[in-house]
Amino acid sequence: MKVLVFLAKGFETMEFSVFIDIMGWARNDYGIDISVVTCGFQKKVISTFNISVIVEKTINEIDVNDFDALAIPGGFEEYGFYEEAYDERFLSLIREFNKQGKIIATICVAALPVGKSGVLNGRRATTYYLRDAYRQKQLKEFGVNIVNEPIVIDKNIITSCCPETAPRVAFQLLEKLTSAEQMETVRKAMGFSDKI
Amino acid sequence: MKVLVFLAKGFETMEFSVFIDIMGWARNDYGIDISVVTCGFQKKVISTFNISVIVEKTINEIDVNDFDALAIPGGFEEYGFYEEAYDERFLSLIREFNKQGKIIATICVAALPVGKSGVLNGRRATTYYLRDAYRQKQLKEFGVNIVNEPIVIDKNIITSCCPETAPRVAFQLLEKLTSAEQMETVRKAMGFSDKI
Repeated sequence: MKVLVFLAKGFETMEFSVFIDIMGWARNDYGIDISVVTCGFQKKVISTFNISVIVEKTINEIDVNDFDALAIPGGFEEYGFYEEAYDERFLSLIREFNKQGKIIATICVAALPVGKSGVLNGRRATTYYLRDAYRQKQLKEFGVNIVNEPIVIDKNIITSCCPETAPRVAFQLLEKLTSAEQMETVRKAMGFSDKI
Repeated sequence: MKVLVFLAKGFETMEFSVFIDIMGWARNDYGIDISVVTCGFQKKVISTFNISVIVEKTINEIDVNDFDALAIPGGFEEYGFYEEAYDERFLSLIREFNKQGKIIATICVAALPVGKSGVLNGRRATTYYLRDAYRQKQLKEFGVNIVNEPIVIDKNIITSCCPETAPRVAFQLLEKLTSAEQMETVRKAMGFSDKI
């Protein structure tokens, strides 16, 4: 199993790191066949709050056929998130993952590019819910039925309401790619003892 | 307020990202005077599971007087964590932070270099608790009184038991550097609604 993690400029590191570490623990400690490839528009991507991360691939090198899932961390508008998250080249990558029925897992405002791509039209999803729900209103404008739950799963698309949900989204992705038992094993090894 | 985040080779990104984003939300969205500086032995640090991060400073450029706290993410032995975390130059940095009474916040096995530095001798702390508690046994060998709680605070030193505690450690650090009210405001904005 292979997960593509797309880092738009201004991504939030807490919403990125969960995909790296949760899939990493699964692979390293339990021999689960799951790998992660990081990708951006440039090799060096600067996060919200200015952490520089070197990604493995640039977007033009990606063949959707090579992957089983797309994971997207959210980010801050004032750090340029939507400049890249709303870029037509990324929106078309999202459409291709959806067309092939592959999983798309997003955290917080990363639901917005998925909404803008059109693939959530008439479907259920959520995004950041505080501050008068202005991000949910934006998502609604893309024809999305907003559901006020921390994590919303509509077939192949996982969306979530806030940074707090980050590990839960990554565990949901791991479960969809493996099994509930394997996910639970990894979750417990990482000290998550309450229910998902 | 200024926090130094030290990235040893093989650090875990989930245990690093919480310091960046939680302090970042506090500063960016609530104007709280708190900044973060990343530091390593080299400018490019490769995490456990191979994420390359460019840090702002190398360890020889650090003057402890410039900082109010030291934050240390844990990491995997098989990715080289202890090669750098146990380096005498880092241990001596830890001793200086402790000598000046500054906060040292660690997640999971990052308690081990703090133990090895000697500053936890006769004091209360915890570390990774699963797998027959082998990491806790190692910490005990440094003269530490192991306490089986998710997060243990002994005066200026915060230790924790696993990756799951990462956001809670960062929120504890934020609270110590600001106030319980300010920390709660940031915590709620990030969607953490249950009790810390």
